[in-house]
Amino acid sequence: MNPTLRVTVWGEFRHEKKNPKVAALYPRGMHETIADFLRPHSDFTVRTAWLDQPEHGLTDAVLASTDVLIWWGHQAHDDVHNDVVAKIKTRVLEGMGLIVLHSAHYSKIFKTLLGTTCSLKWREATDKERLWNINPAHPITQGIGEYFEIPAEEMYGEPFGIPEPEQLIFISWFTGGEVFRSGATWQRGNGRIFYFRPGHETYPTYHHPQVQLVITNAVRWARATVCIPDHCPNAPALEPLPPDPEAAARSTIGHV
Amino acid sequence: MNPTLRVTVWGEFRHEKKNPKVAALYPRGMHETIADFLRPHSDFTVRTAWLDQPEHGLTDAVLASTDVLIWWGHQAHDDVHNDVVAKIKTRVLEGMGLIVLHSAHYSKIFKTLLGTTCSLKWREATDKERLWNINPAHPITQGIGEYFEIPAEEMYGEPFGIPEPEQLIFISWFTGGEVFRSGATWQRGNGRIFYFRPGHETYPTYHHPQVQLVITNAVRWARATVCIPDHCPNAPALEPLPPDPEAAARSTIGHV
Amino acid sequence: MNPTLRVTVWGEFRHEKKNPKVAALYPRGMHETIADFLRPHSDFTVRTAWLDQPEHGLTDAVLASTDVLIWWGHQAHDDVHNDVVAKIKTRVLEGMGLIVLHSAHYSKIFKTLLGTTCSLKWREATDKERLWNINPAHPITQGIGEYFEIPAEEMYGEPFGIPEPEQLIFISWFTGGEVFRSGATWQRGNGRIFYFRPGHETYPTYHHPQVQLVITNAVRWARATVCIPDHCPNAPALEPLPPDPEAAARSTIGHV
Amino acid sequence: MNPTLRVTVWGEFRHEKKNPKVAALYPRGMHETIADFLRPHSDFTVRTAWLDQPEHGLTDAVLASTDVLIWWGHQAHDDVHNDVVAKIKTRVLEGMGLIVLHSAHYSKIFKTLLGTTCSLKWREATDKERLWNINPAHPITQGIGEYFEIPAEEMYGEPFGIPEPEQLIFISWFTGGEVFRSGATWQRGNGRIFYFRPGHETYPTYHHPQVQLVITNAVRWARATVCIPDHCPNAPALEPLPPDPEAAARSTIGHV
Repeated sequence: MNPTLRVTVWGEFRHEKKNPKVAALYPRGMHETIADFLRPHSDFTVRTAWLDQPEHGLTDAVLASTDVLIWWGHQAHDDVHNDVVAKIKTRVLEGMGLIVLHSAHYSKIFKTLLGTTCSLKWREATDKERLWNINPAHPITQGIGEYFEIPAEEMYGEPFGIPEPEQLIFISWFTGGEVFRSGATWQRGNGRIFYFRPGHETYPTYHHPQVQLVITNAVRWARATVCIPDHCPNAPALEPLPPDPEAAARSTIGHV
Repeated sequence: MNPTLRVTVWGEFRHEKKNPKVAALYPRGMHETIADFLRPHSDFTVRTAWLDQPEHGLTDAVLASTDVLIWWGHQAHDDVHNDVVAKIKTRVLEGMGLIVLHSAHYSKIFKTLLGTTCSLKWREATDKERLWNINPAHPITQGIGEYFEIPAEEMYGEPFGIPEPEQLIFISWFTGGEVFRSGATWQRGNGRIFYFRPGHETYPTYHHPQVQLVITNAVRWARATVCIPDHCPNAPALEPLPPDPEAAARSTIGHV
Repeated sequence: MNPTLRVTVWGEFRHEKKNPKVAALYPRGMHETIADFLRPHSDFTVRTAWLDQPEHGLTDAVLASTDVLIWWGHQAHDDVHNDVVAKIKTRVLEGMGLIVLHSAHYSKIFKTLLGTTCSLKWREATDKERLWNINPAHPITQGIGEYFEIPAEEMYGEPFGIPEPEQLIFISWFTGGEVFRSGATWQRGNGRIFYFRPGHETYPTYHHPQVQLVITNAVRWARATVCIPDHCPNAPALEPLPPDPEAAARSTIGHV
Repeated sequence: MNPTLRVTVWGEFRHEKKNPKVAALYPRGMHETIADFLRPHSDFTVRTAWLDQPEHGLTDAVLASTDVLIWWGHQAHDDVHNDVVAKIKTRVLEGMGLIVLHSAHYSKIFKTLLGTTCSLKWREATDKERLWNINPAHPITQGIGEYFEIPAEEMYGEPFGIPEPEQLIFISWFTGGEVFRSGATWQRGNGRIFYFRPGHETYPTYHHPQVQLVITNAVRWARATVCIPDHCPNAPALEPLPPDPEAAARSTIGHV
């Protein structure tokens, strides 16, 4: 693998152009804010990409040179082309890491990798979110204490339509009475996936130091270690097999 | 749920029409052989369906009245319509059980629920398969001893491109030197999924008493207990929230 | 297995004798209250046992005829004899189900089966607990809605020192700002274990209808399906092995 | 954490003194052979310890300065003092990594951390072992191909009395017809545990380059990232609670 960890931060970049409140919080887009706090880390090389670029900024060359992809989307999931989603999926299964943020629980790439509805409860109100650190030994929670708080965030509540996480990292408490599995990991193929709940566009969440630390830690945790293309090989026997009187006949019949 | 467990056995039913060897083993189709060993169980109601029926025999009415779907496919995975696959997926996520047999590791429905390549090694030769029972307390292995053997089967070998199973039930040993996770379970949404490896069309595998017992046990294990349609509700707070000075403004902004 | 599901409810039965508040809530002991709501189920046969009986009421005969053991302890964990704990552990690994309630997170039997600290945060105050149903398809949550509330309970908070649950069933929200994995399952050996958080002795929690339903469901879910004694056999080869010139010499050397 | 990864290799070191065959393979003991292939790695600091040292060589100072402990035992598990086992367990739960080799499946430390029988089938004969790499993206399998072979090894077979592994890394094929989960991981508390099957004392297994690579990779994977002592704190509320009229009365009652 490349000694530098190559990160691509993908943002939908639509709210920022339409909603003055969002634009005030993220003048160059949420993806640029995320890239900005990653760039000072000398082991990272960081690029950005967004929906309205050609191929959504995710050309074959970009994907091939990405070790970890960070994804934020919300109102335009359907505008992401299926063939780009298929390419991203292939790259994750080969080994690329994927960090899925907040409303991207409903992104095509997350849903196609997890296979479930990814539905949840939600509310835009005046909740505070407190994220409890359930796994203090995990690389993603290093430097995070027992919990941290986000003074105002959209609420997401259970049940969350995901497969049982392989590692549950955070559980959120919300003022209004709900809980949520707000940090969770899965391996799919050779790639690592981390879902991280916070980040509604109308709040300054990606300026929050502990949110930034979690994402930074997650990038290192999710980095690709391999790139193994899919194959389904016909494999010769490694040990002696008994003779097969019908082998000649069967060799003319196709398979898989 | 219905007191009777309603099983639908789906078969591709193409090999049986083209290959005399397969036809000799399964004259009315593999799906009918499977249905035949399930039917004597008084708690089951068993139907069959196959590829070349209208809607592949899986109309909305059939799917709505199926508690467990058994799936065998091989050479014609691509002929299964995507909209039927989407309906089956919806039903599994609502609660329907799914038993995926042998070469259906590459079926659209299995791949879309698991999210991975589902690739593997394979060989048609003269291997014997010995399935070791890894979880003798599991409902699926009741009545199965420490292992059972299939004198001749196609070989499937690791790595198998699946998410880490929630419960690993069987591991196979093959004469030619390979191993395989040949029985494994996952929950997706509200539905239970069991993958069971044996069953190449050119062998009498579905006449094997222990293969039949495993599938029978799996039907009972996978039975639907609920039917919960997908939803992603906007949820009112259950506890008092602080006042929100911007509520009026925000109420005009759309969401998820 | 026995057609009747044989349940033994074990209680420490000390608080009830010393604390008038607890005695008022559970005049014959918490274990008898739990037994009382289980007894009307015609598929159950229910016994009770408690700490100050000979062998804590858990003789070999009692354990051998128990399909599911329910355990509540708190202030006297250390008074439970290690040899009784060892016998219970053996029975769970053979196949007996175990339901561990509330403060029994610190019981010897739970700690020895899970291998971890089982520590947590706690507070006796005026919290309300709301248990969110994370897995509505699980047998343990049948008949439970999206959540249920306990108006007053002791608080337990994360991090909870347990191995990653195999199935997470409930997550609790507490007024004071904490969350907790309040219903979780593990398989150990051939036995199923369910930990269920509610039940501090100074509250009427075991009179709560949904708490009773969860425990009732859990008994059915955890029931023993097998009883497989531990063994570590020297196993003859099932396939031909190459000759071993040193076999004679080695046969005189002991092993495991 | 210390920038150098501090490894302690623990060996029973009894077979080597009694059995000339073992002594010929491992003249200074198996633990020294393992230490020898780890020492050239500049990020490691390697010590050894063995059974017949005072405190088995595992003083508080040694344990406190160990990031990863490697454990090999076989015929003298019972000679390991329970209080040393308790100290090791505490250190693993605090964060120390543990690598358990071969016959140490029956060591006290492995059994107490996993909570199960850890029993298995076994045979000393003329089997070849082929270890299939089930998770080629895992840090432990980097540099290992699809499989590797050990020309002669003791056989271990399923069922293996362990909790479902969190990550299954290797599955072994044996000539005599068995399979085995020969590489598996668990997290317990804050520590990572890796069980690795090969290494019977009468074979030169720890001289095998791929066995050495797996253990080397595992040391890096298992390294402690934290050291968090156990506690079970009484925690004040983070959010306002309703008033409690009985607080004064209850404050005189002890807890946990």
